[in-house]
Amino acid sequence: MNLLINPPRVQWQELAERPLFDLSSLFATVQPILNEVRTHGDDALRDFEKRFDHAELTDLAVSASELNRAETNLPDTLTAAIRQAHHNITKFHEAQRFEPIVVETQPGIVCEQRAVPIERVGLYIPGGTAPLFSTVLMLAIPASIAGCKEIVLCTPPAPDGSIHPAILFTAKLCGVSKVFRLGGAQAIAAMAYGTESVPRVDKIFGPGNQYVMAAKQLVSLSHVAIDMPAGPSEVEVLADATCQPAFVAADLLSQAEHGIDSQAVLVTTNLSVAQRVAEETARQLAPLPRRDIAEKSIANSRIIVFENDMESAIAFTNLYAPEHLIIATEDYREVASHIHSAGSVFLGNYSCESAGDYASGTNHTLPTKAWARSYSGLCLDSFQRKLTLQELNPKSLAAFAPIVEAMATAEQLDAHREAMRLRRLAAEAENAK
Amino acid sequence: MNLLINPPRVQWQELAERPLFDLSSLFATVQPILNEVRTHGDDALRDFEKRFDHAELTDLAVSASELNRAETNLPDTLTAAIRQAHHNITKFHEAQRFEPIVVETQPGIVCEQRAVPIERVGLYIPGGTAPLFSTVLMLAIPASIAGCKEIVLCTPPAPDGSIHPAILFTAKLCGVSKVFRLGGAQAIAAMAYGTESVPRVDKIFGPGNQYVMAAKQLVSLSHVAIDMPAGPSEVEVLADATCQPAFVAADLLSQAEHGIDSQAVLVTTNLSVAQRVAEETARQLAPLPRRDIAEKSIANSRIIVFENDMESAIAFTNLYAPEHLIIATEDYREVASHIHSAGSVFLGNYSCESAGDYASGTNHTLPTKAWARSYSGLCLDSFQRKLTLQELNPKSLAAFAPIVEAMATAEQLDAHREAMRLRRLAAEAENAK
Repeated sequence: MNLLINPPRVQWQELAERPLFDLSSLFATVQPILNEVRTHGDDALRDFEKRFDHAELTDLAVSASELNRAETNLPDTLTAAIRQAHHNITKFHEAQRFEPIVVETQPGIVCEQRAVPIERVGLYIPGGTAPLFSTVLMLAIPASIAGCKEIVLCTPPAPDGSIHPAILFTAKLCGVSKVFRLGGAQAIAAMAYGTESVPRVDKIFGPGNQYVMAAKQLVSLSHVAIDMPAGPSEVEVLADATCQPAFVAADLLSQAEHGIDSQAVLVTTNLSVAQRVAEETARQLAPLPRRDIAEKSIANSRIIVFENDMESAIAFTNLYAPEHLIIATEDYREVASHIHSAGSVFLGNYSCESAGDYASGTNHTLPTKAWARSYSGLCLDSFQRKLTLQELNPKSLAAFAPIVEAMATAEQLDAHREAMRLRRLAAEAENAK
Repeated sequence: MNLLINPPRVQWQELAERPLFDLSSLFATVQPILNEVRTHGDDALRDFEKRFDHAELTDLAVSASELNRAETNLPDTLTAAIRQAHHNITKFHEAQRFEPIVVETQPGIVCEQRAVPIERVGLYIPGGTAPLFSTVLMLAIPASIAGCKEIVLCTPPAPDGSIHPAILFTAKLCGVSKVFRLGGAQAIAAMAYGTESVPRVDKIFGPGNQYVMAAKQLVSLSHVAIDMPAGPSEVEVLADATCQPAFVAADLLSQAEHGIDSQAVLVTTNLSVAQRVAEETARQLAPLPRRDIAEKSIANSRIIVFENDMESAIAFTNLYAPEHLIIATEDYREVASHIHSAGSVFLGNYSCESAGDYASGTNHTLPTKAWARSYSGLCLDSFQRKLTLQELNPKSLAAFAPIVEAMATAEQLDAHREAMRLRRLAAEAENAK
């Protein structure tokens, strides 16, 4: 781990930088895949699945009976855990329901805002050695609460065409409408354009490798909304002398095991904490199964000490804008009140990132690469649209219409003025009766 | 106007299509401008302003004294109208303030969601013959209510370097921090990367020509969030026999005058309404100053009749997903309750689009080109981020931690499990004391 002590402000921007990877360099590789799917539909999907996932597929869609029997292939401890996580995530996201707003902005002029579900959403769940069923929870639960009519899920199959039962069980539990055996850029193309089997959706969610991300960016330019840009996962622990170095080390490692490009950063006001965390990290690293990955990631990670200077530690944190921020300080709520740029915040010594990754109730799909300066993590909002409405009472037009008429005249939009003026005249005639 | 009577469902998709324009064809033109500004900063901005806006600039920023004296160059009727619009838009957007959410998802597990302002936002106001001060209101008022620390505004100058006083007056009224004489792709680049004069921002808002839109899309891939993709403005009027054909015609024309690529669509359940609106449109078109533009736009526009079939009229409307939707029917609130894909909805005969364009209180920056299927119009949310927080009570870990441990094990993320397990063991030891 690289130790930096009281870095001067001019160095902060550099310390907050992520490794540069320009997704647009993959556009030339990904665009032909998108084009093929757009033109040849399911045939192209089968070709790409054979080529990239080594799976020869007849049915792209998973059948109802496959979905139904998934639970029988899982241990009860796991299904019970998933059910409790489902309960917690549902409870937190249901509390985010939007109450319609009705405001009379001036007499007779009523403006309203209400939330409506996005009709059709597509969820992407990456493949790999382990089944990422937790991401199914994080994407499908808010989609279901929002009331999305069609919830499509794509995930790459094993070479025998199967999908891990934990994914299927969780998808069924969360009310996913259709699951497809599709991975990579071809899955994104299928959901963006629609094919014979796969419905076209209005917004695509979920993580993926660089090709998936590049495909999402490309289709987002013209066809479909996406949740957010994405990059490797990140954690920052902001700690003072009251932290538990063993916990902090465990948190840094739980980020580091994700991949060699994961970012784990410790920002602390206490030099001794820095040293003890470094020692603990080395000690806990040894027995980890994913030691090779975590070791490389930790070697690139940083410990930044702002000695007895919480103000700088907070300012640097907001500049860095981490995906996950663990605040292991004495007055963690006071510190948290100054944080504006972070994905999700974990308060105090006992709130580890993995709690939120799985089961506390918050969403784990969060902005990385400093996108937390402008993007929220996924929440109920992400699956809804806010619609505005307005109603003008004709009796109020004598007071209101001249405002619109004056502004339209100044913007030289005469037909805009006329649409208002005609109504004012009609209303005045009516009111005079 | 093109009249279609009871089009079969297979034809709907085609009727809902917008003219295709692929912004990515402009990327090759725009990228070098972005690169120049990124590399050469203010010098590049001055060069491009000379080339594209024919303005030789010394100060890119507008001075405080210029901002202060703008009001003296405007008629009192206009400043009074802008002030009333400011009042209404403020009242509606202030009502959108987000109340923090605190939920105990299971005993001892507390999850929270709160809103924080995006720190630095950039607003783009297009140039042209008329000053679009109404867009300043729509972008700067919610930014100010959200509490954005820095609100930067760019707008192209006249060849003498001046900016219309209505823009400057409105910017000052809304609390804009800095106004720059910058237009086109170079303005977008300046706000995305920052230069010696122009601060880098976290999110860029506002309409613009195709080069501006292409520049926004390009910088959004890697550097800065943007409000939404954009296209030519659109209105749909959904009318039955109770509408006022003269009002409907005026509404179609107020859209048509925006540009020859504007979309004005009438969907009606009544054939006689279709005929009377067409006649009224021709009659009202004649005296308009922007007749040339409106005439071309109207020639491309459509009247779609679903005879006595409101259900189809509503289904088509949701498929078309218009930016503005005027519902001029008897039971307009009942009809509105079935609308999920539209930017902003205008209820009844007296609620014209121009009311919302200027002064009712709703935002006029809305999704076009069917992006209303997935994007909201601008609202207070657009200038905020939602941040989640969580706190675990150590006394609750005996019940909670095993859920996380089971799920992490199944996802083969051992360090995730360890971070939770270490805390559970420590808490159990503590609780046993």
